[in-house]
Amino acid sequence: MRRSERISAVTKLLVDRPHQIITLAELGELLGAAKSTLSEDIAIVRDTCQRLGLGRVETLPGAAGGVRYVPLLSRPVMREVVDQLVHSLSDPDRILPGGFLYMSDIVASPHLLTRIGELFATRFYEREPQAVVTVETRGIPIALMTARALNVPLAIVRRSTRLSEGTVLTMNYVSGSARRIETMSLSRRAIAPGTRVLIIDDFMKAGGTARG
Amino acid sequence: MRRSERISAVTKLLVDRPHQIITLAELGELLGAAKSTLSEDIAIVRDTCQRLGLGRVETLPGAAGGVRYVPLLSRPVMREVVDQLVHSLSDPDRILPGGFLYMSDIVASPHLLTRIGELFATRFYEREPQAVVTVETRGIPIALMTARALNVPLAIVRRSTRLSEGTVLTMNYVSGSARRIETMSLSRRAIAPGTRVLIIDDFMKAGGTARG
Repeated sequence: MRRSERISAVTKLLVDRPHQIITLAELGELLGAAKSTLSEDIAIVRDTCQRLGLGRVETLPGAAGGVRYVPLLSRPVMREVVDQLVHSLSDPDRILPGGFLYMSDIVASPHLLTRIGELFATRFYEREPQAVVTVETRGIPIALMTARALNVPLAIVRRSTRLSEGTVLTMNYVSGSARRIETMSLSRRAIAPGTRVLIIDDFMKAGGTARG
Repeated sequence: MRRSERISAVTKLLVDRPHQIITLAELGELLGAAKSTLSEDIAIVRDTCQRLGLGRVETLPGAAGGVRYVPLLSRPVMREVVDQLVHSLSDPDRILPGGFLYMSDIVASPHLLTRIGELFATRFYEREPQAVVTVETRGIPIALMTARALNVPLAIVRRSTRLSEGTVLTMNYVSGSARRIETMSLSRRAIAPGTRVLIIDDFMKAGGTARG
């Protein structure tokens, strides 16, 4: 394989699996290259990502070491994502009877969701979350894309108990929007005790669900 | 920018936005390179993706032309994903009281979901779906990753009507699993009439929801 092909392959493999460590041994086997050669390739990929403001390539030394791509957005790119969201949300056609805002199409756009997920991941990266938790339904796409950018599992809190979840923890709470007692439940298998979680709920609730 | 850096950048930009056309003019502006130079870079990225069996790089001629990355998996890579799923699902620890199978952790793993989405995208790519539709809740992660791989919107059918969806189409159906009449609704804004949709439901229902 030529250098240019190897670099393309290394970029593809890293970007495809955000936050996942790939060892130099794995890369070497896949691409038929020596570790020293790969280290030079990785340096080029790292410089390119940095220059574009589209994430960071980190090398981890030691026996468990290797290389990983962390989709941390630069400030200008974050600004762009937020501006795009604000512009899109300002459209007067979004206002529904009763003063609600139609926004399902934003949650429907996979590419915008990818960037929103990377934005949350960038914001909370240093807190080292070990899982992302959301309450069904509307928060799921953004929570999943955030979990993807952080490479941690997603856990979905359900509003009803499902047999297929196994043993569940259930709690009742007073819903702020519906003004009645509602139930939510989470499978006991989904999150181990002591896990540091990042809660991503939808935009609509002003945090009421989490306080519940 | 050196060739190797440009190739890393082109790979990153393409892989990051599956199925989205990037014009040579955009790439040229971003990377400060002539179209002829970029064409050579793109050829190298294309050959590399093909060699790894991890997607196809397509160039589209003409005024609206450009280049896009289509995450079509090769047969061996599809086989690997299916084998991984089968292996994981065969674990006896998954069997819950009542004969249900615990599988929320599969839907929780962002990287596995990415691959499953690409697998569905590869399978239905030639039917040219214009949107992916799913019924809340469990199908959402796989449907979203399939929509991402195809670069089409995701539409979520809700089991209850939400004010924030605007006008909705509602239908009643007899649920096979619950043996009672249930309701599902879809925002009228979500899907234009005549749209070719790919329906991705969860694994558990044997297609009953779609027939409903």
